[in-house]
Amino acid sequence: MMKRRSAILLLVFFAVASTSGLGQTPPPPPIVSPEVHADHSVTFRFRDPNAKSVLLAREGVEKPLPMAKDAQGVWSVTTPPLEPDFYGYSFVADGVRLMDPSNSLIKPNLLFPQSMVHVPGPSSLPWEMNDVAHGVVHHHFYHSAVVEDDRGYYVYTPPGYNSEASQLYPVLCLLHGYSDGAEAWTAVGRANIILDNLIAQGKVKPMIVVMPLGYGAPEILTRNGLAAFHDPNLVKRNMDKFGEALLTEVIPQVERSYRVSKDRNDRAIAGLSMGGAESLYVGLNHLDHFAWVGSFSAGGLGADYDAEFPSLNSGANSQLRLLWIACGTDDRLITPNRKFRAWLTSKGIRHTDIETPGMHTWMVWRRNLAAFAPLLFRNNTP
Amino acid sequence: MMKRRSAILLLVFFAVASTSGLGQTPPPPPIVSPEVHADHSVTFRFRDPNAKSVLLAREGVEKPLPMAKDAQGVWSVTTPPLEPDFYGYSFVADGVRLMDPSNSLIKPNLLFPQSMVHVPGPSSLPWEMNDVAHGVVHHHFYHSAVVEDDRGYYVYTPPGYNSEASQLYPVLCLLHGYSDGAEAWTAVGRANIILDNLIAQGKVKPMIVVMPLGYGAPEILTRNGLAAFHDPNLVKRNMDKFGEALLTEVIPQVERSYRVSKDRNDRAIAGLSMGGAESLYVGLNHLDHFAWVGSFSAGGLGADYDAEFPSLNSGANSQLRLLWIACGTDDRLITPNRKFRAWLTSKGIRHTDIETPGMHTWMVWRRNLAAFAPLLFRNNTP
Repeated sequence: MMKRRSAILLLVFFAVASTSGLGQTPPPPPIVSPEVHADHSVTFRFRDPNAKSVLLAREGVEKPLPMAKDAQGVWSVTTPPLEPDFYGYSFVADGVRLMDPSNSLIKPNLLFPQSMVHVPGPSSLPWEMNDVAHGVVHHHFYHSAVVEDDRGYYVYTPPGYNSEASQLYPVLCLLHGYSDGAEAWTAVGRANIILDNLIAQGKVKPMIVVMPLGYGAPEILTRNGLAAFHDPNLVKRNMDKFGEALLTEVIPQVERSYRVSKDRNDRAIAGLSMGGAESLYVGLNHLDHFAWVGSFSAGGLGADYDAEFPSLNSGANSQLRLLWIACGTDDRLITPNRKFRAWLTSKGIRHTDIETPGMHTWMVWRRNLAAFAPLLFRNNTP
Repeated sequence: MMKRRSAILLLVFFAVASTSGLGQTPPPPPIVSPEVHADHSVTFRFRDPNAKSVLLAREGVEKPLPMAKDAQGVWSVTTPPLEPDFYGYSFVADGVRLMDPSNSLIKPNLLFPQSMVHVPGPSSLPWEMNDVAHGVVHHHFYHSAVVEDDRGYYVYTPPGYNSEASQLYPVLCLLHGYSDGAEAWTAVGRANIILDNLIAQGKVKPMIVVMPLGYGAPEILTRNGLAAFHDPNLVKRNMDKFGEALLTEVIPQVERSYRVSKDRNDRAIAGLSMGGAESLYVGLNHLDHFAWVGSFSAGGLGADYDAEFPSLNSGANSQLRLLWIACGTDDRLITPNRKFRAWLTSKGIRHTDIETPGMHTWMVWRRNLAAFAPLLFRNNTP
């Protein structure tokens, strides 16, 4: 059966693709990075013979780890055993953040894309791919008249979703953080995998998840982030226009394209970081639209909550099926989150306080989603 | 209206995110890269104070361009004016290919992700985003029993696609090249944008496009590519199992989920590079499934075409509505493509020969798709 095949033809284009960047020098031997060991420690390697310093910056570690250089100019460091999860990381070579050139798994981001490493865990972890029925992730494109740009949003439909059936699905609007793009909750947060798994286990009600682009004022991304957030008008416009685009453009489009309920009792809004603040701001100011509100590590609300939520009072308790406010205890935003919760308490507004271990990381937010989603669209009133 | 807002709260998490990788050193001033100038020349910049050599490797340029270092340790180079398009590129710092840390636009790839720069052009270019009706890109996930892995595929539905209408759409299976993932034709090739534009102009019939993962033997990716392609059994298994997964898994799933015609006259298969070879191999060996076959810069067919296509003869002319074989004249694969076309001619099989300027690049393949798609599913027989 073996035939002489002109594998050489394919070699030619492979060689063009793989060596054209290397100029006249022969390619160095391949680096293996990251290497996940059996004990879940991870070795990271980076060739940079002339750098004076290379550090490993890893999601969830405040202080980058120094790496050590060998005689071949390859820097490396091995972490302690890590909890199974996905971790973003960069190399910092002489002060410049770089992606790992040996790793094609990327954590996309509009400002700081990184490499990502998967430390695999048991199939019971909600973000592990299992052989269960899978939902579909739909990427929509449109011109926003509200924001005046071309943008996309993503929609997750659960396993078994049938556009021709008469069943109407509840809707979760799931918002990303500052610097993320609209793909963050699926590409990094693994929201579709988490929901597939929890739906297969009967823990989550099948729902449609809408993941819009969270910028009402995209120019907030085109400047140095620190400067942009010093401008309270820009921060407010970003939230206001985001809410307007969500309520008048994205949700109506979704309602035309998918079999979704328009009942406020079947609508939730939740998000992380900037998206947590947006969920609170848009959700609590539009209780006619949303009965379920979640906030994961929220950041970006104004300090004057009375001004931010002028109509919010204990009357909301009869409308809110769930107000769920989570933050990691090692997140510097734990303080404003506690402050906001105390304000809610002072107003007599019922809410669920969740404090978990962790910093301002996706490891926290994947767990937040896996804990929050099962609570949604249940018949028990709060 | 202006309120004192605690922008500082958001600053905290932004600062954590942006500086945690930088250790104790203050962040260097931001680098602008790439910078596209009014004349379409592009300046690329990369900070690497201790490198001995930094080159720019750009898609479509065989020999990387040397970059020059300034007193601040920033390397830069400015290209001549470039034709409007999207170009992949990397920096090669002391022999190591790196993505541009100042650019978040990424050309994903399973082996060699790169950065990407958009040189914008007139709205008449088919890959430019225009304010036309947009189709939707659907990401499906499944476990392949044929290949024994978890994998995804993408489906494009055209503007106005209505799953409840009775209209049946024709289907184009569009295949990526070696080292690409299933997202390549949308994320890099802009296939959805190209089709949106050409459908809006009435030049392309609305169709469903299926973009599967092109590896029947994914281990072809886990070894050094050169070595893998020296193994003719592996190369053949990769094509055979790919075809089996396409015909017995992906297409049946698509037929269950979308309103697509099952008529061979409404089915096309086309692809680039390895996917071009797969289109020829699967298409021409399954004329009961496909009436339209396209190949862009094909590479990876065996040398013994009689053995590769044992049943193919001039009888195919009555079944083939189109056999379209394109290659760039500066692509090293032009020689085997000409050889294959000569073999087709010797067998009396009608085909359309397309030679265009260009190398083995996405700039060629975007134009190939824009030229090929308008020919599909027309009533005129060849």
